[in-house]
This record gives sequence, C-alpha cells and structure tokens, in this order.
Amino acid sequence: MKKHNFSAGPCVLPQEVLLKASEAVMDFNNSGLSLIEISHRSKDFVEVMDKARSLALELLDLEGKGYQALFLQGGASLQFLMAAYNLLEKKAGYLNTGTWSSKAIKEAKMFGEIIEVGSSKDENFNYIPKGYSVPDGLDYLHLTSNNTIFGTQIKKFPKTEAPLVCDMSSDIFSRQLDFSQFDLIYAGAQKNMGPAGATLVVVKEEILGKVTRQIPSMLDYQVHISKESMFNTPPVFAVYTSMLTLEWLKAKGGIAAIEEINDKKAQLVYSEIDLNPMFEGFAQKEDRSNMNATFNLVDEKLKESFDAMVKEAGINGINGHRSVGGYRASMYNALSLESVGVLVDVMSELERKA
Amino acid sequence: MKKHNFSAGPCVLPQEVLLKASEAVMDFNNSGLSLIEISHRSKDFVEVMDKARSLALELLDLEGKGYQALFLQGGASLQFLMAAYNLLEKKAGYLNTGTWSSKAIKEAKMFGEIIEVGSSKDENFNYIPKGYSVPDGLDYLHLTSNNTIFGTQIKKFPKTEAPLVCDMSSDIFSRQLDFSQFDLIYAGAQKNMGPAGATLVVVKEEILGKVTRQIPSMLDYQVHISKESMFNTPPVFAVYTSMLTLEWLKAKGGIAAIEEINDKKAQLVYSEIDLNPMFEGFAQKEDRSNMNATFNLVDEKLKESFDAMVKEAGINGINGHRSVGGYRASMYNALSLESVGVLVDVMSELERKA
Ligand SMILES: Cc1ncc(COP(=O)(O)O)c(C=O)c1O
Ligand SMILES: Cc1ncc(COP(=O)(O)O)c(C=O)c1O
Ligand SMILES: [Mg+2]
Ligand SMILES: [Mg+2]
Ligand SMILES: [Mg+2]
Ligand SMILES: [Mg+2]
Repeated sequence: MKKHNFSAGPCVLPQEVLLKASEAVMDFNNSGLSLIEISHRSKDFVEVMDKARSLALELLDLEGKGYQALFLQGGASLQFLMAAYNLLEKKAGYLNTGTWSSKAIKEAKMFGEIIEVGSSKDENFNYIPKGYSVPDGLDYLHLTSNNTIFGTQIKKFPKTEAPLVCDMSSDIFSRQLDFSQFDLIYAGAQKNMGPAGATLVVVKEEILGKVTRQIPSMLDYQVHISKESMFNTPPVFAVYTSMLTLEWLKAKGGIAAIEEINDKKAQLVYSEIDLNPMFEGFAQKEDRSNMNATFNLVDEKLKESFDAMVKEAGINGINGHRSVGGYRASMYNALSLESVGVLVDVMSELERKA
Repeated sequence: MKKHNFSAGPCVLPQEVLLKASEAVMDFNNSGLSLIEISHRSKDFVEVMDKARSLALELLDLEGKGYQALFLQGGASLQFLMAAYNLLEKKAGYLNTGTWSSKAIKEAKMFGEIIEVGSSKDENFNYIPKGYSVPDGLDYLHLTSNNTIFGTQIKKFPKTEAPLVCDMSSDIFSRQLDFSQFDLIYAGAQKNMGPAGATLVVVKEEILGKVTRQIPSMLDYQVHISKESMFNTPPVFAVYTSMLTLEWLKAKGGIAAIEEINDKKAQLVYSEIDLNPMFEGFAQKEDRSNMNATFNLVDEKLKESFDAMVKEAGINGINGHRSVGGYRASMYNALSLESVGVLVDVMSELERKA
C-alpha cells in the first residue's frame, strides 16, 4: 500500500532521491565503490560537497552576497550553541516561540545576557508575538522561523540593526523570502533537505570574528569556512542525499515553484480543519505554519475511530507532539498534494460517519 | 573489475552491510518507508539505536561494568573537545603520537594545563614513545591507540591512577584488549564501524560530573546518557549502518576472530615490505600498526610504474598522507586477506620487473 508520510522529521524525501541515494550506497558514480567507502578527500566526493554548498546558496539567492554555506554535523541543537559561541559577546535578543527557541535560549545563556524580546509561552506557543520592541546594542537577534511542534510560522520578519540569526530547520527552502535579511541561517537537514546527520549553516562572513573568546575549532564557523566544510570527515551520506534533494528542488523550479505547491497543500488541510466541525486548529490563524498543521478532535471520543481510519488509509506520522497533543500533519516539500488529499478525505469521512 | 579498497577512512565496509543499508534506504523493515524518512522516535528506529549501543558494549566485553555507549555526531574531532570539556578541571596528560594527538592537545589546551608526557615528533612520529613517566594528579591521561597517518600503534598501554582516555578511531574492534582499562574510548565510525557521520563514545559513568564548569547540553556526556543517545535527532543512516557492521562482526566471531585475520593481513604486507628490496617501511618495527601499513619506494623513480600496476590491479586508496609521503595500505576489518594478497603480488611483481 502506498504510504502517506506526514512525519515531522526525519520525514518524507523525494522518491527519486531515495533511489539515487540507495544506488550510491552500492556503487557511486560507476566507480565500483560505495559512496560511503571512498575518501572524503577524493575528487568525486569533494565535487559533492562543493555542489551541495553552491546549490544551497543558489536556491536561497545568496550567491555573490558575502555568504558561505556549510554542511556540519550535530544538528540544529549544536547550532544553538555555535551561534552563541561565535557571536555572543555581551547580550543577544531571542524571540521565544516554542520548545526550540527555549532550548536555543538555554544554551546561549551560558555565553552572555539573553533578552527575551517576546514570548508566546502564555498561550502554549499557539501564536507568534508581534509588536515587540528590540533594544539597541544587541549582538544579534535570534528567531525560529517555523515552530515545528506548535505549528506556527513567522510571516513577517522584524527589521533590526543587529545581525539576524534564524533557525529555519523546519521551513528552509519552502517559501520565498528575502534571505539576505538574515546574517546566519541554520537548519537540520532532516526536514526539507535530506536525512538526519547534516546541518546547513549559511552565514554572512562579515559578522564573524568579532567575539573576544577563544572558539574551539569544531565550533568555529571561520575554521569550517576556511576548510570548505571539510575540517574533519563530513557526514558523507547525509551531504550527498542533501545535494540530491537540492538538485531535485532546482529541477522542479526552485523555491518559487515549491512554494506554490506548499501553499495549496496548506490551504487544503486548513480549510478542512476549519470547515469540518469534528476538528479545530491549534495555532492562531494568522500564524499558521505551512509546514506543520496542528489540530485536535473536538470530541476526543472519536480518537480511536479516526486513528483507525488514518491507519487504514496508509497515513503515517500525524500524532501530535506530547506538548500539544492532538494531531500534526507535517507537509514538507517532498510531500505530495495527493497525500494531503488522502488525509483530507479521511477527515471528511469522519464527519460523514459521525 | 573487483576493487581492492585500502582507503584510510571512510573505508571498505562488508558487502552484505552495504547491501542491507542500501535496501533500507528504499524500504526499512518492510514498512514501505525509507529508513531515512521515519521518526527517530519510532519503535523501529529506537530498536536500532538500542541494538547499536548494546552491541558495542558486548563486543568490547564491557557489559555490566559501569559503561555507557553513545552514538554522537561531530566525529572524533568533536571528542577532542568534549573529552576536555567534561573531564579537564586542572591538568591532563597527553601522549603525542601524531597529527591526531596533536589536534586533541590543541583543543584541550583551551580548558586547562596540558602536560605532554611523551612525544615522537622528533622522528616525524614513526614510533611510540616508551618509558615516559606520568605525573600524579592528572585529571586524565589521553592516548591515541592507532596513528592512522603514521602507521604506528600502541601495543602496551600504561597503567595509571588517572582515568585513561583513548582515541581508538582507527583500530577499535580490531584487536583484543582489556577495554576495562579505559575510562573513555571514542572513535569515529568511518573505519571499522560504519560510514562517516556517527561517533562511538564509550564512557565509564563514574568519571563524569566532576568538573565545575558548566557544560553545554550538546557537549555533555551525561545529557546524552540520560537521553539514551537521542538528546537530539541522531544521524539515523550512520547509526543503522554501524549497527549492521557490528552485527556482521559478532556473526564472524567478534573481535577475537577478526583479530586473527587482521594479524594475517598485517604479517603478509609487512613481510613483503621487509623482504622486498624495492620497499622500506616507515614506522619502527615494534610499533607497526596492524591497521595502516606505511611504506616507501626505495627508488622514487619507480613510482610511475608502481602506481600504474596498482591501478591496473584494481587497488584503491594506497597513496600516503602528505605528512609522510609514500604509501599507506589501510587494512581495516572489512578488507579481505585476498585484497592484501593482490597488493603483495603487485609489490613482488615490481621487484621481478625492475
Ligand atoms: C525548529 C527546530 N529547531 C531545532 C531542532 C533540533 O534539531 P536537531 O534534532 O537536528 O538538533 C528541530 C528538530 O526538530 C526543529 O524543528
Ligand atoms: C586516530 C584519529 N583520530 C581522529 C580522527 C578525526 O576524525 P573525524 O574526521 O571523524 O573528526 C581521525 C580521522 O581519520 C583519526 O584517524
Ligand atoms: Mg517549537
Ligand atoms: Mg473545524
Ligand atoms: Mg596520526
Ligand atoms: Mg624492503
């Protein structure tokens, strides 16, 4: 049976990417050797790394604008730490929009004063704070563009004097933005980009080298830049599969093209949530994420039958995160409109049956 | 043509492991979903992580002895930093046996006083220092069991009061040792264990929690232990493939069985190096590594013809590291005796021809 994979991450990847990645594990570039058993310094792999880095900048329209793209290990969680280690001299601002922002704040506090410029904790993070003011003299302002767990997404980014740092783990490459408004973007690969195990970092070089503390080599963006993202052995498979996914995205027409599809998927599921009396959305409407739709059954007693119908339809991964409950349909770039259609059909069927 | 892969790492892996890993990228456990697109919190993946961790302890004969096994990101290079961050309060001892020890020392110096208890830098690291004395009152002593670049290997480990920390990146699971003499072992996966992108850490719990500094979550062994190696999204593919390789090793008879084969491979290549007047070994005989054999042509003018013969025979990855020159034949667990035979045949052919 065809599966419809709404997993929050790791998540669905394009079928053709999976096929190529699977083949490369047996035989890479017709070399008779596996992708994962060749030297990362070999010409074949250096090409992969270079391609992945340049595709990332190209798709974000950041080529020639003073940015560098890196593929590192450690996940976005290590970036919570690295961002502060590299940029935080005295104080930084953080907008607290959920679990991931809170974790980023916790790690940064070890390195300087953290000012929470706004928080939606009062409403269990079901909205994006607005109208907050950003004090002067910050080393940077940190935002989480999409809150994977709560299903909210920043639609309008603040203009600031301070460098803008953004955790885009769960919506990078999903929508058109002026990415040059950001000075540091980071994202774990395992949503819109590839398998877990690689993290994309896009950084404007001019913001680096300004803190006085000594930075350990592995945590130093400048070290990784100077070694072209090969300071140490990179996560070869995750970088290769990310490169394939970025190639797939480019061939589809890039972010502009995928955004159109993502908008359609989100409209389809949110209009069902709104029109169907069995369901209600969790996030405030204006802040709804196009990537993660969070919703609940109005009548919890229907849970068992809804879950059975979902399973029957081949739908996977829509259980909500424990801090929100209910359901979460993650609709990353590689999820088809068809899959969203299948979910919406099941939701309407519940209404008809009940 | 069959390839004989002597790469220094990433390196040859068992063919059956590659096949299973490749299949899992298309369909994992007959789920209809790829290994890399399911949640790391799913039952199927949690089983993989648990299995990988317990196999590591079982193969090292460290079960029930107060150790924890973790699969982390960042490579051995991040361990240079984490070891010091977690254990270094005042001063630590390091034995400097090559490039990797030197890098470990460099990172550790940021966290305390480092005493080089011995060094073989005077002879371009072609031997293992012996008879050095270890001062009292160290927080730990750090060793590199196998020096990948120079082809030396510690045969006898010092007895110390201080906790013993060992970088076993390039010889873990290759030879029988009393692993309980170590308090912290770490190893990048990409030699004897799997693809790049996962790092095995085996740590005796009682040595942790003793430094006064605050440790960032991602660098804190205790955090990773408390989350059963899932503090954040793990490098799913690298962990799975490592698990497969450990299963393969166990099925083969474990470390005792593979050590026998590794001994034969090393004897074969070293006796050719010694008997064949065309070649000379780089490392001092008593310190020769069973994993990486470093050697040179006596007459550099034969390089072109030797390289051509090597290529002709399907041999890959025997160029020496730039800091040593010459050749390096890496003979990790998954390299067959047959492949070493092919190399030795080419070496003797050069003698006959010249
Ligand atoms: C927005 C966001 N930030 C950070 C993380 C943490 O990523 P990782 O598990 O790669 O450290 C996640 C994980 O889902 C996320 O969704
Ligand atoms: C002995 C040793 N230690 C450390 C490293 C660094 O490992 P990584 O590239 O995974 O950081 C290597 C890499 O080859 C190594 O051989
Ligand atoms: Mg969140
Ligand atoms: Mg409704
Ligand atoms: Mg070395
Ligand atoms: Mg000789």
